[in-house]
Amino acid sequence: MISVVIMAAGAGTRMKSQTPKVLHMLSGRRLIDYPILAAQSVSDDVQVVLFHQREQVEAHIAKSFDGVRCVCQDHENLPGTAGAVMAAKPKYDRVVVLNGDMPLVTPEFTRLLANRTEEAAISVFATANPSGYGRVVMSKDRVRRIVEEKDASEEEKKINIVNAGVYSFSKQFLSEFLKKVENSNEQKEFYLTDLISLAVKNKKTVSALWGDELILMGINSKADLSAAERIHQGLIKNDLMNRGILVRMPETVFIDASATFEGECAVENGAMILGQSRIVRSVIKAHSIVEDSIIVDSDIGPMAHIRPNSEIINTHIGNFVETKKAKLNGVKAGHLSYLGDATIDEGTNIGAGTITCNYNGKNKYQTTIGKNVFIGSDTQLVAPIAIPDNVLIGAGSTVVKDPKEGDLVLSRSEQKSIAGFFFKFFGKHK
Amino acid sequence: MISVVIMAAGAGTRMKSQTPKVLHMLSGRRLIDYPILAAQSVSDDVQVVLFHQREQVEAHIAKSFDGVRCVCQDHENLPGTAGAVMAAKPKYDRVVVLNGDMPLVTPEFTRLLANRTEEAAISVFATANPSGYGRVVMSKDRVRRIVEEKDASEEEKKINIVNAGVYSFSKQFLSEFLKKVENSNEQKEFYLTDLISLAVKNKKTVSALWGDELILMGINSKADLSAAERIHQGLIKNDLMNRGILVRMPETVFIDASATFEGECAVENGAMILGQSRIVRSVIKAHSIVEDSIIVDSDIGPMAHIRPNSEIINTHIGNFVETKKAKLNGVKAGHLSYLGDATIDEGTNIGAGTITCNYNGKNKYQTTIGKNVFIGSDTQLVAPIAIPDNVLIGAGSTVVKDPKEGDLVLSRSEQKSIAGFFFKFFGKHK
Amino acid sequence: MISVVIMAAGAGTRMKSQTPKVLHMLSGRRLIDYPILAAQSVSDDVQVVLFHQREQVEAHIAKSFDGVRCVCQDHENLPGTAGAVMAAKPKYDRVVVLNGDMPLVTPEFTRLLANRTEEAAISVFATANPSGYGRVVMSKDRVRRIVEEKDASEEEKKINIVNAGVYSFSKQFLSEFLKKVENSNEQKEFYLTDLISLAVKNKKTVSALWGDELILMGINSKADLSAAERIHQGLIKNDLMNRGILVRMPETVFIDASATFEGECAVENGAMILGQSRIVRSVIKAHSIVEDSIIVDSDIGPMAHIRPNSEIINTHIGNFVETKKAKLNGVKAGHLSYLGDATIDEGTNIGAGTITCNYNGKNKYQTTIGKNVFIGSDTQLVAPIAIPDNVLIGAGSTVVKDPKEGDLVLSRSEQKSIAGFFFKFFGKHK
Repeated sequence: MISVVIMAAGAGTRMKSQTPKVLHMLSGRRLIDYPILAAQSVSDDVQVVLFHQREQVEAHIAKSFDGVRCVCQDHENLPGTAGAVMAAKPKYDRVVVLNGDMPLVTPEFTRLLANRTEEAAISVFATANPSGYGRVVMSKDRVRRIVEEKDASEEEKKINIVNAGVYSFSKQFLSEFLKKVENSNEQKEFYLTDLISLAVKNKKTVSALWGDELILMGINSKADLSAAERIHQGLIKNDLMNRGILVRMPETVFIDASATFEGECAVENGAMILGQSRIVRSVIKAHSIVEDSIIVDSDIGPMAHIRPNSEIINTHIGNFVETKKAKLNGVKAGHLSYLGDATIDEGTNIGAGTITCNYNGKNKYQTTIGKNVFIGSDTQLVAPIAIPDNVLIGAGSTVVKDPKEGDLVLSRSEQKSIAGFFFKFFGKHK
Repeated sequence: MISVVIMAAGAGTRMKSQTPKVLHMLSGRRLIDYPILAAQSVSDDVQVVLFHQREQVEAHIAKSFDGVRCVCQDHENLPGTAGAVMAAKPKYDRVVVLNGDMPLVTPEFTRLLANRTEEAAISVFATANPSGYGRVVMSKDRVRRIVEEKDASEEEKKINIVNAGVYSFSKQFLSEFLKKVENSNEQKEFYLTDLISLAVKNKKTVSALWGDELILMGINSKADLSAAERIHQGLIKNDLMNRGILVRMPETVFIDASATFEGECAVENGAMILGQSRIVRSVIKAHSIVEDSIIVDSDIGPMAHIRPNSEIINTHIGNFVETKKAKLNGVKAGHLSYLGDATIDEGTNIGAGTITCNYNGKNKYQTTIGKNVFIGSDTQLVAPIAIPDNVLIGAGSTVVKDPKEGDLVLSRSEQKSIAGFFFKFFGKHK
Repeated sequence: MISVVIMAAGAGTRMKSQTPKVLHMLSGRRLIDYPILAAQSVSDDVQVVLFHQREQVEAHIAKSFDGVRCVCQDHENLPGTAGAVMAAKPKYDRVVVLNGDMPLVTPEFTRLLANRTEEAAISVFATANPSGYGRVVMSKDRVRRIVEEKDASEEEKKINIVNAGVYSFSKQFLSEFLKKVENSNEQKEFYLTDLISLAVKNKKTVSALWGDELILMGINSKADLSAAERIHQGLIKNDLMNRGILVRMPETVFIDASATFEGECAVENGAMILGQSRIVRSVIKAHSIVEDSIIVDSDIGPMAHIRPNSEIINTHIGNFVETKKAKLNGVKAGHLSYLGDATIDEGTNIGAGTITCNYNGKNKYQTTIGKNVFIGSDTQLVAPIAIPDNVLIGAGSTVVKDPKEGDLVLSRSEQKSIAGFFFKFFGKHK
């Protein structure tokens, strides 16, 4: 069995944000969600070490995950990465240490860490640009030393194998050596890299687990966040394309990690699929946005906005149409409409410019529209209202009371003309 | 004279689609259209070899091309690429073999194949990643052998020259050797690569025609399709920029292969120009979509949608405006409108929120608007309707009958106020 | 003290445009603005040498910059780059020569040129693709010769150090040698590169100032312009991210050079921030466009369009909403609206489909809306109009006269029903 400790105590000042670093969003999830999900895929003993902006992070974790323990680093007396691990109380014999700001570390890589049996294993990658990283001195597949940038000789600076910052330890090794780490450095911090030095000095085995630079990327700034999201989005979209989803101009498409697709779907350029959306046998056209909604056997957009809790089934949604908490089944809503807090049944046409007036300044109300209704253009449906099956509503109507089945509904003033007014107003030539 | 055989019989299972592979779209055309167009540029004897989902592909070809013959591969007895070529009956002495899933092979490259005179020429390219391809063993510019991945020695696997899969043969060579290809392989298929082995064995000349990896790309999955479209889009936009069309942030712009541009035009980021659109001296602003329409001396968008069969001349179309089968000449339609099945003449202003009510649930009807008309905001024009020249329509009107020239048209209820109702409804503070 | 001469006399025929080359836009500024701004950062004696389409360029400079002198090249007698410099009358002892079509040359690089003290310094860069550039023959950090492509031997063609085309001269050197440049070449032009040959021949010091190929890029075609804008956009967005602005999918975001950001902001994919916009603690959502406007403590979009001279403070702007010259403070305008020439105060809700009818065909008029107003959906506000505080406007109203505080305003026809009409019209089944 495996324990996982996730380090998330850092201040993240380079993010220049009031939001804690690990609560920033990446592909629709918080950064901290990724190591927690990876940890939960191998462990039932997941501990997150917090300190800076602890309350906010802890509240998010409590709300989003079951069985994850948050512990607080003794930052005053035990700062640094080793100090973070000291705050954890791992239950099991093997301890994997993940990083709250490394969201691209996969469950697969976490499992590789979990499967190690030697005293210590560090994750490493080869990079063309090692500057800033601790260089890893190896001999015969064993780690001999980690040299920090500032302590590295010119020769050592040329080493292109670097320490990624996630680890696997035996609990016994941690118990014996973690307390021996000293803070005799400029920052007076306790570093996990010193633990590696101690291990080597004491003839313990320290191995290297090789990973890909891309997935071992840490996030320290918004530029890093944007770059990491780009990589992650690429993975999401490649995976979808391999599963038969067509993604046009994938670099322009944004798909949250929680969105799911079934059957043959297409997502056009500029589209966004957000939150827990579920797209089934549907086409999401250019520049359309679907948020936390279900789309089945439908075509959406271009330039449509499906807001949360919509269920769009067997329906055509056209340009400049917005839905919110709307259930549409077998509907055509092709142009310039707002359909909120509404249920609309099959065979019904929604004319251009139709608006469900769902809010009266105090409360929101429901609109229900039955089967085979024809809503004329520029109709306002003042909720709460129910339009039964087989109703025809004339263009430009303000509908304030429920019609009866078979009705033609009109609220229309007589068309009047004032002859010659045009020329009086504009003169001979407008 | 040249015959061209296009192989398009494969099942394309990796596309994971109900649509036949060669009917997928790339830059607004079906994949199969590209080799047919390339073939027709050098030949009047073009044959497409079909088998899987034959009817759909044949129907598309019959509808879209003149003089292209579809033949059916004897898939049961003669599967494989050589089997495909056996199905064709080329008229002329030189036979070029193209591939239905290689849409980026240009007419120029096809002509190079057509111009070969030796017994056999195969297309090759050098690649950093030869894995999966048949390696081409050459000596002194002659092809000696094609080794399939699975049969290649470690040494041969390092060869980075690979077989692209399009060919040029003398008909006489084909007549003599095609029947000698055997299916003594695991798949029991007849391969064109074996034809090359036969040629070499019989001291026939087999030369290599070098091409670019990018244009010799084959499409087997939706990821391939997306990648090929990206390359093709890059070519389209580079060509336009070289001809003086400004394309802003070209990676975000999508332009169909059939769209044409004349004079000085600009296409902004996120815009799409689809189908047989013709853009003349116009600016298509950000995130706007033009489909199968003509735009002359106009500016469109941002975020406008010009649907098929629109003719927009000397006109300003603004944000959130949709047109469909609309002829606008000298018009301003700046905001939030739907103009469908309409003809609008010069000097006319279309107010924000104007909607042509072109559909009554049974049929579509025309709206005609003359010169110098001023349509007030939020007007519904219930078609069929004709607004003559020099008419002023008040905001919020539902226009159901034709006005006369010079009229001010209103359909408006008197504005009434109920004093103090606000406070009764909301209390002291809303 | 430094004089700067900016060469902008060329015809720019490869741009294929009626607009003068140096007046094309890059990140919201004219090309010529960049060297002028760089020049003004080091000099109060800035001269721009013009010839082709001189009037248009001169008019732009006069309108946009103070203290920049335009001079006209004697193109008939003294064509070529040396001819351009001959047209200038530099005041000071050091003369920096910039290029009107090299917009990415930074003020920092210009300062490096300005700080040179030798007779002549040329800017050079190393490139993988030197074809087309003059090759720079150097020995011991001194420039020996610039060899034009057409005059280069095969050996010289392999030189990958090229002449970028911006220079620094001592005025004394220019006075002595500029007049000695001859036009004994095929084009009969006077070239600055010949001035370098003269310098070397006369034992003057010619040094090389190394720069980055990217910033030393010259613009000769629309493809160049698009590529340069891409580089420039990358710099703008990286700088913003380093300052704590979140930019999602930066390759899809367009931000003008003049736009400014304060506090923690986010810009989502497909968004554009244009002109002198100022964004403060706000989120600009996907595909939204902000032009020359101020956004403070607000969220905009997705798919909203904030047109020039809007001031949006503490406000929610939703999808398909357009503003123009609108001041909104503490407002919610969530859907499908046009708010032009309007002032709207805090606590006010703007219903979906609200339109300010600001234009009557002759003039534009103001709409003023007070605090805590509730504007029902699909309301037209016919300007000039003032809605006082605490007013409730019913859905679908056309408001033509000012209400009083506390009023409920309605302009609505009674809702009528014609029973059974639906079945008469559509038959049993629509």
